[in-house]
Amino acid sequence: MQRYAIGIEFCGTQYRGWQTQQAGVASVQETIEKVLSTIADHPIILHGAGRTDAGVHATNMVAHFDTTAIRPDRGWLMGTNSQLPKDISLQWIKRMDESFHARFKACARRYRYIVYNAPTRPALLYKQVTHLYQTLDVQKMIAAASKFEGTHNFETFRAAACQSNQPVRHVKHCRLFEHGRYLVLDIQADGFLHHMVRNIMGCLLEIGQGMYEIDHIDHMFAAQDRKAAGITAPADGLYFIQAEYPEQFDLPQPPLGPHWLNLPE
Amino acid sequence: MQRYAIGIEFCGTQYRGWQTQQAGVASVQETIEKVLSTIADHPIILHGAGRTDAGVHATNMVAHFDTTAIRPDRGWLMGTNSQLPKDISLQWIKRMDESFHARFKACARRYRYIVYNAPTRPALLYKQVTHLYQTLDVQKMIAAASKFEGTHNFETFRAAACQSNQPVRHVKHCRLFEHGRYLVLDIQADGFLHHMVRNIMGCLLEIGQGMYEIDHIDHMFAAQDRKAAGITAPADGLYFIQAEYPEQFDLPQPPLGPHWLNLPE
Repeated sequence: MQRYAIGIEFCGTQYRGWQTQQAGVASVQETIEKVLSTIADHPIILHGAGRTDAGVHATNMVAHFDTTAIRPDRGWLMGTNSQLPKDISLQWIKRMDESFHARFKACARRYRYIVYNAPTRPALLYKQVTHLYQTLDVQKMIAAASKFEGTHNFETFRAAACQSNQPVRHVKHCRLFEHGRYLVLDIQADGFLHHMVRNIMGCLLEIGQGMYEIDHIDHMFAAQDRKAAGITAPADGLYFIQAEYPEQFDLPQPPLGPHWLNLPE
Repeated sequence: MQRYAIGIEFCGTQYRGWQTQQAGVASVQETIEKVLSTIADHPIILHGAGRTDAGVHATNMVAHFDTTAIRPDRGWLMGTNSQLPKDISLQWIKRMDESFHARFKACARRYRYIVYNAPTRPALLYKQVTHLYQTLDVQKMIAAASKFEGTHNFETFRAAACQSNQPVRHVKHCRLFEHGRYLVLDIQADGFLHHMVRNIMGCLLEIGQGMYEIDHIDHMFAAQDRKAAGITAPADGLYFIQAEYPEQFDLPQPPLGPHWLNLPE
C-alpha cells in the first residue's frame, strides 16, 4: 500500500463544495475520486485538508489517498489531469509514508478572499471574485482586519449549521490589502469554523461602507451570537490557498494563489 | 437622434466572436443589441471598433449606437448591465456627436495575449489563458517580438480567409514580458488582419521552444505566404484591450485590462 499526497486547484463554481455531501450532487472530492479509481483500477478514497462551501475555489487544496496500484508519479499526475474536467487540476503529487494525514496533520489552513471594487460589474472572472460597486474606506478595513488576529471565541462568526464542537480558533494572521481594483483578505488559522472567513469578510465590508466603527467588533465577539454580526460574503470570492504541515513531511510549496494575483511571497 | 459610445468587457468563451455572422449563433454584438433595443424601445445597431474571433475576450471594446430614446446615461449603463448575461458588461457610456464612429475613427487597436506557462494545466482561468507546459526561452521571445514592430507586409501572418484588401500594417509596439507564471504579449497597430495576433504569438511560442532562430522571421516576412509561418495560437489567451481615437473625442481611458494583471500603466 502506498500513500500519496496531492495538491489540487479547482474552480468551485460548478460544484457543491469539496466534500461529498449527498448522492447525485457533484463534489470536487468525488469527481477526483472517480478518476483516480479508474487509474488505480480499485476504489480510491480522498481525505482533504479542509472542507469548502459550494462555489468556493482552491489553488492548493491538499489531500491524500492510499493505493495498491503501481504507477509512475508522472503517470498519476498527467493521467488524472487528462481525465478530470477542465475546472479541476492536480498541481503536484508526492509519495508519503503512512504517518501523513491531509486532515489530521494539517496545523494551519490559509484562505484568500477577493473583492473586485469598481463602479460596474466584471464580465471576466465574474464568479471568481465578489463585485462591490460601493466606495469603501479601505484604510479602516485594513485596521479592522487585525482585530481578528490571535485566539478568539468565533461563535459570532460561524454559521448556525456549524458542526464543530468548540468555537475557539487561533488566527495567525488576518491582513487586508489593495491590489489594483481588487481587495484581498489573507487569513491563516489553525482551523476555520463554517462560514468563518465569509462572515469576517462580511463584517469588514460593512465597516468599509461605514455601517459601524472598528470597535464594534469587540461587542460582536463578546455577544457570542451569530445575530450580532452582519452579512455572510458570497462564496464567489473565496479561495482555499494553503494547508500547512510539520516540516518533516516536506510537501511541495507552490507560490500562493490565485496565480493571477502574482503577489510577492 | 443621439449617438452614444460604450466600452464593453466580455468573456468570449461562449460566443462566436464580436460580430454577427450567421443567424442563430450568438455573437457579443447581437447580445448587446437585443438588450439596448429593449431599453430604447426601437431597434439598435452597434458599430464596434474591431472584429474578434470566437472565444476571444475584450476588456474595453469600444462601440457606438444611435437612438431617439431619452434616458439618463446611468440608466443606459445600469439598465443594460442588469439585463446582459454575466459574461458581458458595459464599463462606461458617453454621449458623442455624429462625427464619432467607433470603427472608422479608430486610429489604433491594442491586444494582449496571455500564456500561462507551468508544468500542469490551470483549473482557474482555464479558457481565459493559453496553457503551455514546455520550458520557454523567454529572453529570445522578447527579442523576437520587436521584429514585428514597424510597417510590414503581414501576408505571412494573416489567415487564408482574411478579407482585407491589403496586408500592410503599422505595428506601433509589440512587446513581450513575464508576469509571474504568465507571459504577456502587448501589441498595438493601426489595424489587424484576420488571426494576425494569434499567428504572431504562434511564431513567438515556436521560437521560445527552440524550433527556429529569431532571424527566421525575416524569411517568413519575405515569403509573403501563410505556409511559411507556423501555428495559430488558440483564441483563449487573446484580449482586445483598447481602441485609440483622436483626442478631440475625449473618450474614457480605463486602466488597460485584463484587470487581474494589475500592471503599472
